[in-house]
Amino acid sequence: MQSFEIDKSDLLRIKTALEGDDAELEKVLKEYHASEIAIIFERLPQEAKERIINVLPTVMASDVIAEMDEEHHPEDILISLDPEKRSEIVEELDYDVATDIISQLDEDEQHEILRDIDQEDASNIRNLLNYAEDTAGGLMNTEVIKVNINLNKKEALDEIIRQSEEMEEFYTIFVIDDADTLKGLVSIKNLIKARADARVSDLVVTDFVYVAADLDQEEVARLISQYNVTSVPVVDSHMKLLGRITVDDIIDVMEEENTEDILKISGVSEDEELSGNWQDAIKSRLPWLVINLATAFLAASIIRGFDSTVAKLSIISAYMTIIAGMGGNAATQALAVTVRRISLSDLTDRQAYNTVIKEFLVGMINGACNGLIVFGVALFYDGNPKLGLVLFLAMTCNLLIAGITGASIPLILKRVGIDPAVASSIIITTFTDCFGFLLPLWLASKLLL
Amino acid sequence: MQSFEIDKSDLLRIKTALEGDDAELEKVLKEYHASEIAIIFERLPQEAKERIINVLPTVMASDVIAEMDEEHHPEDILISLDPEKRSEIVEELDYDVATDIISQLDEDEQHEILRDIDQEDASNIRNLLNYAEDTAGGLMNTEVIKVNINLNKKEALDEIIRQSEEMEEFYTIFVIDDADTLKGLVSIKNLIKARADARVSDLVVTDFVYVAADLDQEEVARLISQYNVTSVPVVDSHMKLLGRITVDDIIDVMEEENTEDILKISGVSEDEELSGNWQDAIKSRLPWLVINLATAFLAASIIRGFDSTVAKLSIISAYMTIIAGMGGNAATQALAVTVRRISLSDLTDRQAYNTVIKEFLVGMINGACNGLIVFGVALFYDGNPKLGLVLFLAMTCNLLIAGITGASIPLILKRVGIDPAVASSIIITTFTDCFGFLLPLWLASKLLL
Repeated sequence: MQSFEIDKSDLLRIKTALEGDDAELEKVLKEYHASEIAIIFERLPQEAKERIINVLPTVMASDVIAEMDEEHHPEDILISLDPEKRSEIVEELDYDVATDIISQLDEDEQHEILRDIDQEDASNIRNLLNYAEDTAGGLMNTEVIKVNINLNKKEALDEIIRQSEEMEEFYTIFVIDDADTLKGLVSIKNLIKARADARVSDLVVTDFVYVAADLDQEEVARLISQYNVTSVPVVDSHMKLLGRITVDDIIDVMEEENTEDILKISGVSEDEELSGNWQDAIKSRLPWLVINLATAFLAASIIRGFDSTVAKLSIISAYMTIIAGMGGNAATQALAVTVRRISLSDLTDRQAYNTVIKEFLVGMINGACNGLIVFGVALFYDGNPKLGLVLFLAMTCNLLIAGITGASIPLILKRVGIDPAVASSIIITTFTDCFGFLLPLWLASKLLL
Repeated sequence: MQSFEIDKSDLLRIKTALEGDDAELEKVLKEYHASEIAIIFERLPQEAKERIINVLPTVMASDVIAEMDEEHHPEDILISLDPEKRSEIVEELDYDVATDIISQLDEDEQHEILRDIDQEDASNIRNLLNYAEDTAGGLMNTEVIKVNINLNKKEALDEIIRQSEEMEEFYTIFVIDDADTLKGLVSIKNLIKARADARVSDLVVTDFVYVAADLDQEEVARLISQYNVTSVPVVDSHMKLLGRITVDDIIDVMEEENTEDILKISGVSEDEELSGNWQDAIKSRLPWLVINLATAFLAASIIRGFDSTVAKLSIISAYMTIIAGMGGNAATQALAVTVRRISLSDLTDRQAYNTVIKEFLVGMINGACNGLIVFGVALFYDGNPKLGLVLFLAMTCNLLIAGITGASIPLILKRVGIDPAVASSIIITTFTDCFGFLLPLWLASKLLL
């Protein structure tokens, strides 16, 4: 099976079925997986989505809602359903998924939804709503399988089967004591294999990875990836078991964080929705462009300072755009490598120092190579070796500056607690623009005029 | 537990222990998790790594090797060990991990390693070496738990326990027929809960997601994330079960793919190792800079064509750098959003069209806003409203072009099968540079001189 792509015929089938009666519609829908319907939803109007959710059996309807991208606002569908259907669906959702969706609504709407559902479910969801969405607590599912350390094999297995009644997948089984304190993990395999008189306390593994509820989700992802575990328990400050985070929740976090990284490094607000409307895109990007405009004026003011040089040697204004532009390109390269390194692991002082030295060397050598080419063009095309020399020196210096700033600015920002992906590129471009104009103009004014 | 960061004291402890005898070293090492030692390895010389691997018990030594980043070349350690220790470690590794590491060696070395180990292991690894590293086949683990569809409950449970003897984690249990054809999955929970006389055929789930061995790993990641499964079976063209890919393998793929995306969009070869040396960095980046230089000459040649305009109105050379630079910034924004959208899901023609229209609007409005600011500066600072008008028009048009190209170039490249992350930015920058110079110079030559 290949990854599902909506093709026109699927969409057409469903649109046609939407014109028919409920039974016919349900029959067509049942040929799709819930996650496929969630994708088809992206292309349907609100009324069609509501109708489909109403027609589907509750379990599948709740799967569809669960699979919808946050970006496509599953909460809008939920709030528009009639209360009875809605309650059925919410009760069917995993607590962590229900919480994520409900958290997007305003307080009155949240209250309305939680009032109508099973009160144990409601209190679990209310609990989860207290954790920030991007922390371990916001990510965790409170439905865990846990057995008391004092049980014997048979009691433990019965307990596990009872608790897993409503869970689709079998994850880690946590071992707790009478005070609900997390003591360790036990593997179902070892439990099944153990002798009939074995106790959980004989089988418990006490060396395990856990996270605090307020740990940032990016840290959780890093931990799960580093320790190669499929699930981590979430605990409070007294080691009381609150829930678990599974590796499949982390996949969504990683996608989200990676989207944010690429957007931030490109000067787009991390909150911009990829498929959002143009008004939101302007709100997200215009402030950044205006800041860029201010720094561009700064760089351009250098050119103004050399008005007479430009007037006497107008050719220099073509060359300086090349040197500034190449500085920007080289800096972007150094920046991308450094930002990505930082985001995968923290660098020690020594590693940071080595990174800057490396980028200094790379910048200087790449600068000299490109400088030679520009020298050649000035020599053969303009017949001016002195101009060539000016451009060679300017190119080498600017790419060297690009290398140093491209590596050191994100490292410095990280050290002082500013997100390097957001702020680095504007600072660095300002450097390479300013020096890209200053170096050729100043050298030309000294050596050529 | 927080994500492990090497701190100086850990490193110092291990370095001190390395000066002592084996027993003392082993004692210190045992206080760390294998993945922690793998991180500490990044900071140790080759001899120290070899000594540590030799001192550690085989199981832990192989865990350390398995946890090492590809970037830090676990294969170099493996090949330098004495053959007996090496064979023990390789036999202990999961087949997929062993294959990844061994695939980095040359053929003679591969042969040497595989000759010395258990021949069943060797033939499994040889098999896996045939699959490209970045496909489902290259990613899969051939150690699966599979039960014949004709078994009864007791036989199946015994079989599962026997097969899982050497596996750390319990994943999906696959159901096959006598010809090894994949028939479906069975959940251990349902098996335990089933009545004593139940058969696997009563419990098998036949509606499941699977992948072909030659599917690209990025597609596998997308599929696992889309269907929220923890493991997918890998099959050949006759539905014969070859292995399985688990969600934790996918985490590494996603990190790798995301590093590549950020590097590619920034003009760095996707193969550049983040912590590689400066020579490799130059090899990876210089070609890209030279291509950029060529396009920069193209843009600069436009300025040459307006030599007399620049000579008469030298102020324009400062302003045109602002307009070209702002075009580049706006295009980068549109590009990042579009590239990220494409990499998360394929866009239909209609979605592609809407994206271009949206970016056209966003570019035009952002351009007009920034154009107004530049108009204001030209009016109040230079006292020249006609210059202001020229700059307003040039800024608006260039950002509008930036929006259209930023969205349409990656979409077009994707359609014709070129990776949009690699080639888009250079094409787009060429557009925004050329128009950034052409528009103000041409308008100035028509309206101001």
